[in-house]
Amino acid sequence: MKKSRLEAFSDGVLAIIITIMVLELRVPHQATLAALWPLWPTILSYILSFIFIGIYWNNHHHLWQVVERLNGAVLWANLHLLFWLSLVPFVTAWMGENHFASAPVALYGVVLLGSGCAYYILVRALLASHARDSLLARALGNDIKGRVSIWIYLLAIAVAFAWPWLAGLLYCTVAVIWLVPDRRIERVLAPSAQ
Amino acid sequence: MKKSRLEAFSDGVLAIIITIMVLELRVPHQATLAALWPLWPTILSYILSFIFIGIYWNNHHHLWQVVERLNGAVLWANLHLLFWLSLVPFVTAWMGENHFASAPVALYGVVLLGSGCAYYILVRALLASHARDSLLARALGNDIKGRVSIWIYLLAIAVAFAWPWLAGLLYCTVAVIWLVPDRRIERVLAPSAQ
Amino acid sequence: MKKSRLEAFSDGVLAIIITIMVLELRVPHQATLAALWPLWPTILSYILSFIFIGIYWNNHHHLWQVVERLNGAVLWANLHLLFWLSLVPFVTAWMGENHFASAPVALYGVVLLGSGCAYYILVRALLASHARDSLLARALGNDIKGRVSIWIYLLAIAVAFAWPWLAGLLYCTVAVIWLVPDRRIERVLAPSAQ
Amino acid sequence: MKKSRLEAFSDGVLAIIITIMVLELRVPHQATLAALWPLWPTILSYILSFIFIGIYWNNHHHLWQVVERLNGAVLWANLHLLFWLSLVPFVTAWMGENHFASAPVALYGVVLLGSGCAYYILVRALLASHARDSLLARALGNDIKGRVSIWIYLLAIAVAFAWPWLAGLLYCTVAVIWLVPDRRIERVLAPSAQ
Repeated sequence: MKKSRLEAFSDGVLAIIITIMVLELRVPHQATLAALWPLWPTILSYILSFIFIGIYWNNHHHLWQVVERLNGAVLWANLHLLFWLSLVPFVTAWMGENHFASAPVALYGVVLLGSGCAYYILVRALLASHARDSLLARALGNDIKGRVSIWIYLLAIAVAFAWPWLAGLLYCTVAVIWLVPDRRIERVLAPSAQ
Repeated sequence: MKKSRLEAFSDGVLAIIITIMVLELRVPHQATLAALWPLWPTILSYILSFIFIGIYWNNHHHLWQVVERLNGAVLWANLHLLFWLSLVPFVTAWMGENHFASAPVALYGVVLLGSGCAYYILVRALLASHARDSLLARALGNDIKGRVSIWIYLLAIAVAFAWPWLAGLLYCTVAVIWLVPDRRIERVLAPSAQ
Repeated sequence: MKKSRLEAFSDGVLAIIITIMVLELRVPHQATLAALWPLWPTILSYILSFIFIGIYWNNHHHLWQVVERLNGAVLWANLHLLFWLSLVPFVTAWMGENHFASAPVALYGVVLLGSGCAYYILVRALLASHARDSLLARALGNDIKGRVSIWIYLLAIAVAFAWPWLAGLLYCTVAVIWLVPDRRIERVLAPSAQ
Repeated sequence: MKKSRLEAFSDGVLAIIITIMVLELRVPHQATLAALWPLWPTILSYILSFIFIGIYWNNHHHLWQVVERLNGAVLWANLHLLFWLSLVPFVTAWMGENHFASAPVALYGVVLLGSGCAYYILVRALLASHARDSLLARALGNDIKGRVSIWIYLLAIAVAFAWPWLAGLLYCTVAVIWLVPDRRIERVLAPSAQ
């Protein structure tokens, strides 16, 4: 029961984050298709962030299926993750309004990096309270995707000041890596599926 | 359990979308009934969008009752649907503020068309992972309403530039078609109801 | 299961409505307590609306405990209720910003009246699909509170143009009437409590 | 079942409160890192409020695990708590925008004090409907943390007009006190854990 309420709260926060971003799509004053054109960077950064929040929701969803127990540290590790994700609408808007300029693109990477680290901490906190041979421990394995993502974020932040578009491409690369759902957990669950 | 969390997240996003639109009803500065008059196009487009989101919630609700399993593709097909629906508040506001001018009315149709296609893709993704004789497959049948809606949207987008009001009427027609709840699913569930 | 999802969606919409109103409490530019003073009508109308949404949530909560089945008509009667309630933040802000002037106070009553009628319709739609001796039918009785509220709203709208403060008092009267939770349902459930 | 719906509604409101605050982080117009600098007080007050809402969610979560029954008084005591917490985004924004000036810092304390008292009232309302030897009564004990917090809030409000930074430090002290999760409840539940 404990678990279900944490999931409900996280779902609520993620649902609000993903929807609130659309408020930054300011309605143009003119009623022409041409007036939509200046919105393209805002729409592009909205789509990118929508995908990232979707990835986190997907992974969170998969992760909690194999969680067996939780404690205070896990509750706070989860809130810490939600904190970083709650900053996504802010950096999305700043990046979109400034046409992917260097500083906003770098800050976007910092927020993604913070979220990635927070997810890593959450997984560690969960592993600490689960047995070595638990479903969770077997499902997570060595978490190669998580490690690679963090290195790509660091690289993207570094190159953002010289070539912001390259940083944007790197973020898209991470998104593509994660769009493949977490087969590890699906594999472990498969015999006892649903 | 997987299913219930996807439903909860979708409910959250739909609840926010339907409620956020009311923020576009800007409070008039004067305290007279006359000051409300200029709001009628905004209110009208709010009502239309409220009904459309309500229809999607209703159909989503009916659809998931007969879903037996889900996978990564379904999760993303669902997020894709939510993405299109999240654009509804934006086009609703643009259409209302511009008194149903051609371009906003056409864009409104594009978003409805995108949502309709996304719903179609979601249904396909679900059918792909269910048996031919599953409750889901029997319940959905040939999906005539879904096909007709998409053709009406295409027609509405085409005529919007000449007669935006006709496009508006076509959107209302689609709403009326769908307001009748999805009897197909209710019929299949009837013997084992509730 | 059907029922639980309708409750979850309604809870989501009501939670957003009740929280979104606080966005109308605009932060004063000066950092003095005196700068808070002009906010009193906004805060007062916020408190009133918070109580009304709370009453609807409470009654909705009690009502659905005795609901045994639902159909398409009930789903739409529920959405119709949520539609009227979604207008509450708008009229709350208009009434607060204009210091309880006549027109906003009357419109506030119109939205409360619409919500009251929508609740009445929802109850009728539920009764139509339940047996005469169902828990629901026995619990609702003659619904004297609902009828009285509607007459008070009508009276308040009528007097709002002459004495808006009297209308405000009438709204408070309705709130007080309802603050006593719906004993009818609690009484019926008592033997089989929880 | 009653209980689960109250939890869902509270989760919804808390999720919205915690996420809505980020809307006060206004996007700077310039695309330089220097343009972020003036945001530090807003970010700092956002972090503080995020932690406070997180603490309330955690305690609410722990509290309701040992609740066995609820009545109308409890429903309203819970709504009363949500009312005070719904004011947090307002005072957070006012405090952040005014760089922790005296009046906003004092008002922030008033809202925390109101929330603390509302939580205390909720606990009393729950104890009134539970047996003396119930899990709830044993879990709550003498509630030393709750009492200490209220005294610290009173002290902070008093000193805010002379030394607002000291008041800020006192709020952080309360946060640290509560960050340790409510062991009392975890201890009582431990034998029958999960």
